[in-house]
Amino acid sequence: MTAQGVFITFEGIDGSGKSTQVRLLADHLRASGREVILTREPGGSPGAEEIRRLVLEGDPDKWSAETEILLFTAARRDHLEKTIQPAVDAGQIVICDRFADSTRLYQGITRGDLRGVVDQLHDLMIGREPDLTFIIDMDPGIGLARAKGRNGTEERFEDFGESLQRKMRGGFLELAQEFSDRCVVVDGNRAIEDVAADVAQLADERLP
Amino acid sequence: MTAQGVFITFEGIDGSGKSTQVRLLADHLRASGREVILTREPGGSPGAEEIRRLVLEGDPDKWSAETEILLFTAARRDHLEKTIQPAVDAGQIVICDRFADSTRLYQGITRGDLRGVVDQLHDLMIGREPDLTFIIDMDPGIGLARAKGRNGTEERFEDFGESLQRKMRGGFLELAQEFSDRCVVVDGNRAIEDVAADVAQLADERLP
Repeated sequence: MTAQGVFITFEGIDGSGKSTQVRLLADHLRASGREVILTREPGGSPGAEEIRRLVLEGDPDKWSAETEILLFTAARRDHLEKTIQPAVDAGQIVICDRFADSTRLYQGITRGDLRGVVDQLHDLMIGREPDLTFIIDMDPGIGLARAKGRNGTEERFEDFGESLQRKMRGGFLELAQEFSDRCVVVDGNRAIEDVAADVAQLADERLP
Repeated sequence: MTAQGVFITFEGIDGSGKSTQVRLLADHLRASGREVILTREPGGSPGAEEIRRLVLEGDPDKWSAETEILLFTAARRDHLEKTIQPAVDAGQIVICDRFADSTRLYQGITRGDLRGVVDQLHDLMIGREPDLTFIIDMDPGIGLARAKGRNGTEERFEDFGESLQRKMRGGFLELAQEFSDRCVVVDGNRAIEDVAADVAQLADERLP
């Protein structure tokens, strides 16, 4: 019989270092003999990646907030069915860069007061929370400077600028309280290796 | 002040002659001086057409029933916001080839018992029924032969074959009873001009 796996997510504002911490935690867990797969949202399965391209490329006003929520939920459903759940069922550790908490904030708060709709859609079509969520907290000024240093065509969200990132930071800290059973906040305003050491220790404490 | 427009849909199995009847009703209404726009689902707005391509092209098993419902609902939301509602608000008559009733049947009944999910999603994200729905009833043997006579790459649904079409026919007749305030059933097993004459007369009786 295979032991049940674990579903871990990382959340935080753009440039908070989430993607780096995802990789470092994977290295740490693999070093202790665990099987780890890395994934990300939006995307994470071939179908979800197609939906990701549809949402993130092109005119920022192309989709209404409501349509965007539906597309992200469709992508998440595919990602969960095709990538996350099969790996967890096989006893692996799945580490995902962004998940439903990002939708709760970006689409639920910053694009109109749609948090209720986001939650109802999540309950109806996803119905799954991560087992453990790391919220990497970071000063938005630092985060935005880091995010701008990267290249890419998917600039829709980063284009919203620093005031959005400030709202997002506050929103993530509120979500950490709302889902305190699975969320831990890690101070990201430090050297990468210090943040990684905290994350590794917290994961070791909480993983079965 | 502009009078409120009217939202009319046509439903029925593949090959039932819906698309022909949509055009003939438009001709009839325009001849009496009304402003008419024709549209179709899935699709009907630039964004919804992109989602349509994502759903209908490729492997029939590419998406689960649940993901497909989410994608169709996203397309419908965009179509409603960008095409249908603005035209109705401007006093026009919108005639649409397929709408939510097709999702209630195809995704709600024939791909698993998901009618409840389809309805909850519709109430949450669409919240709009047509003012008048013509259900073109036709013997599935005749309908399928007609549908196979057409070309195209979008063969996913037609590939499900005659037994699906028989279920669909029964399902449309049940929907006509469930939504009897807006649905009328028209016998499609007749000459095109006879069907069109019935449709025109019913529309004239019901339109403001």
